[in-house]
Amino acid sequence: MRLEIFGVEGLAEIQEGDDLADLIAGAADLADGDVVVVTQKIVSKAEGAMAVVDPDDPLSHKSVVEQESVRVLRRRDDLVISETKHGFVCANAGVDRSNVAAGRAALLPDDPDRSARRIRAGIKARAGVEVGVIVSDTFGRPWRRGVADVAIGSAGVRPILDLRGTPDASGRQLQATEVAIADELAAAAEMVMGKAQGVPVAVIRGAHPAWLGPGSIQADLIRAPSEDLFR
Amino acid sequence: MRLEIFGVEGLAEIQEGDDLADLIAGAADLADGDVVVVTQKIVSKAEGAMAVVDPDDPLSHKSVVEQESVRVLRRRDDLVISETKHGFVCANAGVDRSNVAAGRAALLPDDPDRSARRIRAGIKARAGVEVGVIVSDTFGRPWRRGVADVAIGSAGVRPILDLRGTPDASGRQLQATEVAIADELAAAAEMVMGKAQGVPVAVIRGAHPAWLGPGSIQADLIRAPSEDLFR
Repeated sequence: MRLEIFGVEGLAEIQEGDDLADLIAGAADLADGDVVVVTQKIVSKAEGAMAVVDPDDPLSHKSVVEQESVRVLRRRDDLVISETKHGFVCANAGVDRSNVAAGRAALLPDDPDRSARRIRAGIKARAGVEVGVIVSDTFGRPWRRGVADVAIGSAGVRPILDLRGTPDASGRQLQATEVAIADELAAAAEMVMGKAQGVPVAVIRGAHPAWLGPGSIQADLIRAPSEDLFR
Repeated sequence: MRLEIFGVEGLAEIQEGDDLADLIAGAADLADGDVVVVTQKIVSKAEGAMAVVDPDDPLSHKSVVEQESVRVLRRRDDLVISETKHGFVCANAGVDRSNVAAGRAALLPDDPDRSARRIRAGIKARAGVEVGVIVSDTFGRPWRRGVADVAIGSAGVRPILDLRGTPDASGRQLQATEVAIADELAAAAEMVMGKAQGVPVAVIRGAHPAWLGPGSIQADLIRAPSEDLFR
């Protein structure tokens, strides 16, 4: 099995109201079965999911974070780890001022799965190809330093690859049986985007057909609080 | 930027004492700058990091998990989330019975960074190429369903890409500035290995030169308990 991952170059700075599907289909030569990973930042910009913040007043950013949080898990200094209305647990409720004009902060999209579905349908309409779409964001993790990209929305990509009941190579039942393939796709895509280069879209070519199918991040990838040992 | 990721096919079942570097260099046509990702399972097998368990006695597996844990964070039913001597927080202290002969369980390697260094040096000696090496394992995560591969050892790959001080595309300082590139490489590699196919090694070609360099997972990627809000 072989995957190819490449960034989509040449996208102009995204503005509110831009048609991302149209821009992506115009900038990349997409094929059936490709997975297109789009960073949250440009989805939020296109959808106008932005808040006004006073760059000179730290409380301004903080109050936006509080508004976007339904539950605070931890606080230390300026850092808040909280749960968003979508069920994501992340730093500062995903409110982010990098790669955004001064005086603005990007919020998470209202419904990132819906954002992914729209982009997927738009690419189908524009370029006639069936792709999977992931909306990705950059999250920290407990216990491990550094950040990594994860999927916050998906369309046409199964968030979880369910291998329960699959025998392993020695015929035993597998123990670790649900692979978060959407998160692995998002992490892989981040590597060709970088954080500073301004490449907000990547394509993964060669996806296994089993990865493509229905599902949503919010329904399938968020762990229910009742199953969660850390919430 | 473009990455290519492919599994290394044709490796025989690994036995204690096998020279992994030799086997990998023989099975794959490696090039300078490749990143070679090797699953923990075959490293543990080659190093003999195995325990004897009674397949009919659940307490037998449990007592191995206790032995391999320095601190238990959570317990529910048969699941233990604990910290290993290396500082990894994971399910069942990384003790794993899948893809292992009945009556055996694979432990984590004694020092996965050292394992990675040995494989890297062996590949250099055998094939004359300078590669980066990651030893990967499959971990669950709080808040999100499913598992994803992460790096538990590295050699010649920087665990963290430090972008602090790098301006973003609009000239602002980046907020999320330390990218866990070794974990992203491990997650990307998992996709071509699968859990059931028995492909325990993958190659990532096209790595950015900035990703290659010194560092160790234990020193650089494990979050110190004093900095950790969830330990």
